[in-house]
Amino acid sequence: MKIKDNIETFNSLLKRRGFIWGPSPEIYGGLAGFYSYGPAGMALKNNILSIFRKELRAMGFGEVECPTIMPEIVWEASGHLERFIDPVLNCKKCNSVYRVDKFLKKVLPNQMIDGLSYKEMENLIRENNLTCPSCGSQFENIEEYNLMLETKVGTDTIVYLRPETATTTYLLFNRLDQVMRRQYPLKVFQYGKAYRNEISPRQGVLRMRSFDQFEIQMFISKKQEYNFEPFEEVKDNQLPLLDWKVQEENIEKPNLISLKDAIKIKILKKPAFAYCLFIAHYLTKKLGYSNNVIRYRQHSPNERAHYADDAWDLEIKTEQFDWVEICGIHDRTDYDLRRHAEFSNQSFEVAMDSDSQEKEIPQILETAFGNDRIIYTLLETTFMVEDGRINLQLNNFLAPNTVAVFPLVKNKEAIRNLALNLHQNLQNRLINSFYDESGSIGKRYRRQDELGTPFCVTIDYDSLEDDSATIRDRDSMDQIRVKISEIPELIKKKLEKSKI
Amino acid sequence: MKIKDNIETFNSLLKRRGFIWGPSPEIYGGLAGFYSYGPAGMALKNNILSIFRKELRAMGFGEVECPTIMPEIVWEASGHLERFIDPVLNCKKCNSVYRVDKFLKKVLPNQMIDGLSYKEMENLIRENNLTCPSCGSQFENIEEYNLMLETKVGTDTIVYLRPETATTTYLLFNRLDQVMRRQYPLKVFQYGKAYRNEISPRQGVLRMRSFDQFEIQMFISKKQEYNFEPFEEVKDNQLPLLDWKVQEENIEKPNLISLKDAIKIKILKKPAFAYCLFIAHYLTKKLGYSNNVIRYRQHSPNERAHYADDAWDLEIKTEQFDWVEICGIHDRTDYDLRRHAEFSNQSFEVAMDSDSQEKEIPQILETAFGNDRIIYTLLETTFMVEDGRINLQLNNFLAPNTVAVFPLVKNKEAIRNLALNLHQNLQNRLINSFYDESGSIGKRYRRQDELGTPFCVTIDYDSLEDDSATIRDRDSMDQIRVKISEIPELIKKKLEKSKI
Repeated sequence: MKIKDNIETFNSLLKRRGFIWGPSPEIYGGLAGFYSYGPAGMALKNNILSIFRKELRAMGFGEVECPTIMPEIVWEASGHLERFIDPVLNCKKCNSVYRVDKFLKKVLPNQMIDGLSYKEMENLIRENNLTCPSCGSQFENIEEYNLMLETKVGTDTIVYLRPETATTTYLLFNRLDQVMRRQYPLKVFQYGKAYRNEISPRQGVLRMRSFDQFEIQMFISKKQEYNFEPFEEVKDNQLPLLDWKVQEENIEKPNLISLKDAIKIKILKKPAFAYCLFIAHYLTKKLGYSNNVIRYRQHSPNERAHYADDAWDLEIKTEQFDWVEICGIHDRTDYDLRRHAEFSNQSFEVAMDSDSQEKEIPQILETAFGNDRIIYTLLETTFMVEDGRINLQLNNFLAPNTVAVFPLVKNKEAIRNLALNLHQNLQNRLINSFYDESGSIGKRYRRQDELGTPFCVTIDYDSLEDDSATIRDRDSMDQIRVKISEIPELIKKKLEKSKI
Repeated sequence: MKIKDNIETFNSLLKRRGFIWGPSPEIYGGLAGFYSYGPAGMALKNNILSIFRKELRAMGFGEVECPTIMPEIVWEASGHLERFIDPVLNCKKCNSVYRVDKFLKKVLPNQMIDGLSYKEMENLIRENNLTCPSCGSQFENIEEYNLMLETKVGTDTIVYLRPETATTTYLLFNRLDQVMRRQYPLKVFQYGKAYRNEISPRQGVLRMRSFDQFEIQMFISKKQEYNFEPFEEVKDNQLPLLDWKVQEENIEKPNLISLKDAIKIKILKKPAFAYCLFIAHYLTKKLGYSNNVIRYRQHSPNERAHYADDAWDLEIKTEQFDWVEICGIHDRTDYDLRRHAEFSNQSFEVAMDSDSQEKEIPQILETAFGNDRIIYTLLETTFMVEDGRINLQLNNFLAPNTVAVFPLVKNKEAIRNLALNLHQNLQNRLINSFYDESGSIGKRYRRQDELGTPFCVTIDYDSLEDDSATIRDRDSMDQIRVKISEIPELIKKKLEKSKI
């Protein structure tokens, strides 16, 4: 049995086992859109990050980290000051705030809302006599609400908390060009916090006001976008694509199609952009999602962000929130560097093509993961209840604990020492081991099942005689008896094998 | 020759090799107190973090992550709203702002400033006729300047960017108590950003407005502070201590003294607090600092933060900035939980002692690292110039690249393929390898020396005959010839050996 009938159990597990707590700070009632990670959640997050870092490094990507605060001019140039806004209705009487498009879609379900101008939406409100759902007052005009958080540094410099890591990475272009010695495409990524002042955030960690981004960038020439060598190695990979034209026919199921064919039938324009879709899919698969919960959904032209020429969301099918975007791939063209060149009076034109000296502003292809959503969807899609047994079927190398070591009883010194020694040996070999001596063995197994721990080792009375212990496998529930001295090597091998 | 005569060379290396860039955003002139990390800086930072995480996990610490933004009441309770302030002189004519104590110390070097009241400082300004150094105007009264950055979420909720991670960790006490099953001391740490609106930040990454903290906490009972089992295992360790009374005699050199003796002669009161000093020293030594650049300096009673009963700084001796604090150890008593209990109307009283049912509010011992300062001091103390050769003598496992692989020439396909293959094999074994084929071999060696890369492997014409390559050691400059197939294992062994 999957999560469907056990949503309450799942949601309480997230808190009870220390994955996700909030809204934070809980003891003060919580602030909507802010969450904390407990020890299990952080262990999972760190495991995800180290897989991403290792894979990207092997592909030649470098990592950078920029401040989360940037002066006003940066966001003027990026377009976020002007365009990163939600239209809202602000009730002057009771101070309730509603996002206009969401509000209208809800109260006028048969009306087409997307693409309407503010005037047209105001007309709809008047014609239908729509009033504030909280207090019944009439609404005034639509107001613009910028999603960026503003503060001041020093005594009077206006700055904004970044709404994305991407822009802050782009500002480093000159530096990256030098340190990476003009080897195009320049490949770089940044992990860190971004902030959006959502009007009324719901859906837990899926829509937070402060959230994690892991954004991967390629600075590339126009020519290279269409003639991209690494594409040749990946072009036969089949990805589950759902382009925007198909969506208009209310189709929800993606087509499994090779990247080569996607280019041929013009669902995708550029091989280098198709390569970004490959990278995102490759990283996602590394985390162990099964094929049937992954799809790529293309944005329709009026859904795209202000900087994007083409945009695809990698989505995961969940029970609680339907399809959830965990990654967006955007063709940002030369928009960003052109704007920053203009606002900073610097030149970002470089000769990118070894055959010619012609200079151009690089194009940017962006692959942007939201890590909180990865964590949520991984937990939800691996959550299982079978015969009352709760179990997270996380990939072995993602689980917060790889091994749990139990002494059968805690008041028998010799058994306890064997268990503590094994625990120490496992840790010395960089295997994440957790030692637990409290409660019945059954309870201890259940705790580890709820954390997704793949292996549990029990040291019992027989261990004192035969130097062996029982290893229980999370998924098969099989128990095998193994020499204690051989356990670290055995676990290492099992871990290696479980990497895809 | 060390850094002394090469400060310019060192500072330019930080930028040229992609360690630290700023103030950010550079293309817009930069905002004081904000910096970015380039690929080499981030690789170093990640290596430091993974050592800290691994060691702390082995000691039984769990990791959490909390929002960087918290509502006003949190900072009212923590005392930061009222007491996290600098007294400043704000020139009404030219808008220059000066921190009063620093200003007075500079213009009145023979006057004792620490401990003076605002009134007394204002008197000094009047008596000495001190005016604004920028425009010569008379100063008005001393004003208070809160170091926290304020913003709003939703439309009107006042919130602050956290000035430390510690407080946000404390708010999780109830949750941690449950998930860690009341095994006292509760051991937990948090890594993340904190923000302080410094008036005029200088000293590069040593005084940033947005910076990294790695703060380790123990929630512990009063009894356990004095009767702390793990202390017995570490009490013979000798640490370089400089208590505050000795400092009053202008002594700068620490005493090497065992923790046991420090307790005996009452420089330290509590064994559990002494254990925190041990942990910080242990982690610092893991990063490879040599003994002669480390000391522990105790705060004098009027230097301590508002929450601290005892405080010691672990400092590193640098050439550019003298002694630099990289870690502060604070005995925060039950101050924080007592205040949060009061402001949140919750009870944090728990029965911590297995022998009795008496309830108490836990004491908190804090060990707070500043990671940007670790990075700076590691780079400065390992920087070497010998016979014109620039070299970072970073510990092998901290270096951004562990190995660099060079084909002697890039236009000989067979040599290039051997090199690329080796590079790939190293990466498959999780060894950080960097491939470089551009420029002369001499230039390539120099680049890697400046990045602190411990091993450089060159594939040459002979390699095609003997399947061997040359490994050069960064420190000894020795070159040895090794079978290419044996290189990954050899490097793995050398890495293992270099861990302390």
